[in-house]
Amino acid sequence: MLSVSPPLAAALLTGNRRALARAITLTESTRPDHEVQAQALLAEVLPHAGRSVRVGLTGVPGVGKSTFIEALGLLLADAGHRVAVLAVDPSSARTGGSIMGDKTRMPRLTVHAGAFIRPSPSGGTLGGVARRTREAITLCEAAGYDVILVETVGVGQSETQVAAMTDLFVLLTLPNAGDELQGIKRGIMELADLCVVNKADTDPRAAARAQTELTAALRLLTPHGAPWRPRALRSSALTGAGIPQVWEGVEAYRQAVDVAAKRRAQTAVWFDDLLREAAWQAFQAGVDAERLRALRAEVLAGTLTPVQGVRALLSPSGGQQEGPPYLGDGPT
Amino acid sequence: MLSVSPPLAAALLTGNRRALARAITLTESTRPDHEVQAQALLAEVLPHAGRSVRVGLTGVPGVGKSTFIEALGLLLADAGHRVAVLAVDPSSARTGGSIMGDKTRMPRLTVHAGAFIRPSPSGGTLGGVARRTREAITLCEAAGYDVILVETVGVGQSETQVAAMTDLFVLLTLPNAGDELQGIKRGIMELADLCVVNKADTDPRAAARAQTELTAALRLLTPHGAPWRPRALRSSALTGAGIPQVWEGVEAYRQAVDVAAKRRAQTAVWFDDLLREAAWQAFQAGVDAERLRALRAEVLAGTLTPVQGVRALLSPSGGQQEGPPYLGDGPT
Repeated sequence: MLSVSPPLAAALLTGNRRALARAITLTESTRPDHEVQAQALLAEVLPHAGRSVRVGLTGVPGVGKSTFIEALGLLLADAGHRVAVLAVDPSSARTGGSIMGDKTRMPRLTVHAGAFIRPSPSGGTLGGVARRTREAITLCEAAGYDVILVETVGVGQSETQVAAMTDLFVLLTLPNAGDELQGIKRGIMELADLCVVNKADTDPRAAARAQTELTAALRLLTPHGAPWRPRALRSSALTGAGIPQVWEGVEAYRQAVDVAAKRRAQTAVWFDDLLREAAWQAFQAGVDAERLRALRAEVLAGTLTPVQGVRALLSPSGGQQEGPPYLGDGPT
Repeated sequence: MLSVSPPLAAALLTGNRRALARAITLTESTRPDHEVQAQALLAEVLPHAGRSVRVGLTGVPGVGKSTFIEALGLLLADAGHRVAVLAVDPSSARTGGSIMGDKTRMPRLTVHAGAFIRPSPSGGTLGGVARRTREAITLCEAAGYDVILVETVGVGQSETQVAAMTDLFVLLTLPNAGDELQGIKRGIMELADLCVVNKADTDPRAAARAQTELTAALRLLTPHGAPWRPRALRSSALTGAGIPQVWEGVEAYRQAVDVAAKRRAQTAVWFDDLLREAAWQAFQAGVDAERLRALRAEVLAGTLTPVQGVRALLSPSGGQQEGPPYLGDGPT
């Protein structure tokens, strides 16, 4: 591989924060020459990445996510960890600037020498934002950050993406969990390795009840024989109560689960997703878009079966001849 | 469209059970000429399909699924409904014959004039089995069956497929739900529109407790503002207690949810899945399998990033030149 950016890579590997910020900016650029440089840089530092704890966090707005992340980050940074905070917020594409970019959200962590905070990449699809965040994880690790906290907004599909790039996933909720969790999209709770009832100080009794409810629900959701049984905890980011226990939960998880195997599986899935996406783009470039639209309309109107629709698209004459054999088995 | 099988279609539309069985067998054939005939038949009867209630059912082995389906089926058939029971069991590919094909599982429903029972198609991938089951639903509807019960084994990925082809999904469990549900794969509970604690007669107190637990868990799992709030019910398929209430639940669901819109969305997803699968097959046919294996190994070993791996595969020279622009954004 051609090393186009040895000075940047060298500076990055010394832990220089400005170099890290510049490297992340490079990966976020859509200029083709920048993309080539970014990929070369990533390949160069890849051997130095991977030595961190990667934690995904989500929760509905109002749950106190910024305060929680700041409290956890300060606890870890004060203990000598180097903590990077990244974000996945595809909505930042629309507003032209993410609320997660506001560094005043975490004023104390922002100025801590052991911490690095980066807002969500803006622009592009969720897939694009997610890919840039994965790359930012690699760069932060290469720069020596050993705890990576990746936050997400808790209202969309970004949670699945963040769970796919982190070692474990933390769901923050409120003491009135029954109502609050209903703001969480279906499927998110099943991603959670830890559920934390935050703002427990505001209503200790309700927080204890929420913890009990969550414990019962998590028990129902966890398959028999799973290496890790998700835990429900309580915290108050404001007072700091319960924050050390959350980190104990993270460490217990990492004891129980083969994280290296999980990461290899995540990389394999990511590679396959990229391949499938490339296949799909190539396919779309080769088909008659007008014809595809017309056939889809027929399928949705019920005058063609989906199998016939695909078959007709792939056989230009539109006749009844034998289609490609693989259509016989459909997607798995 | 060329109608290659008008006699079969005509017989099918009169509700002839033998014609229905033959038509389903035709869709299950892998002979290319049979496939063409089957697709023509499906297209011909498609306008007569769609007028049924499609219910998916799952539960771990031992939950009493066959007895439950027989009890529900008899209730409906005795009330004048025409009831078809289909199954999705990809494991039948391995054993060469599904346990779900054993008609002695439902001896009374099997001989009822208003019922039609068909075992899982055997052979092929899960996608293939699922596609044939979808086609069997169409054929059963064209033959006048107005209730379609699609069962699945409750231990694999077939639940998602069945949920994607039915109007609502029923999860059967046992009075000791806390333990039993742990046999259910993660994610299945989130598919459930109705949870039924079966065999409630064996331990009424535990069944009531299980119902309470499930109600709480379903409440946590259901997003705010959802048109339907999943219900937890109790039944005893053996005594018949609670079975009418399950059907009332099905009808309440169909009142609350826009089923026609849900079906259109399911068809669109199925069509897109078939298209993506076709794209993937075409892509695989065009790449160097040996090179793909080698690049995947490098990605998994951490010497290449996934993006670089895909890029290298798509640019035969393996150099640093600009890759296809769509790789800039990755999968969504």
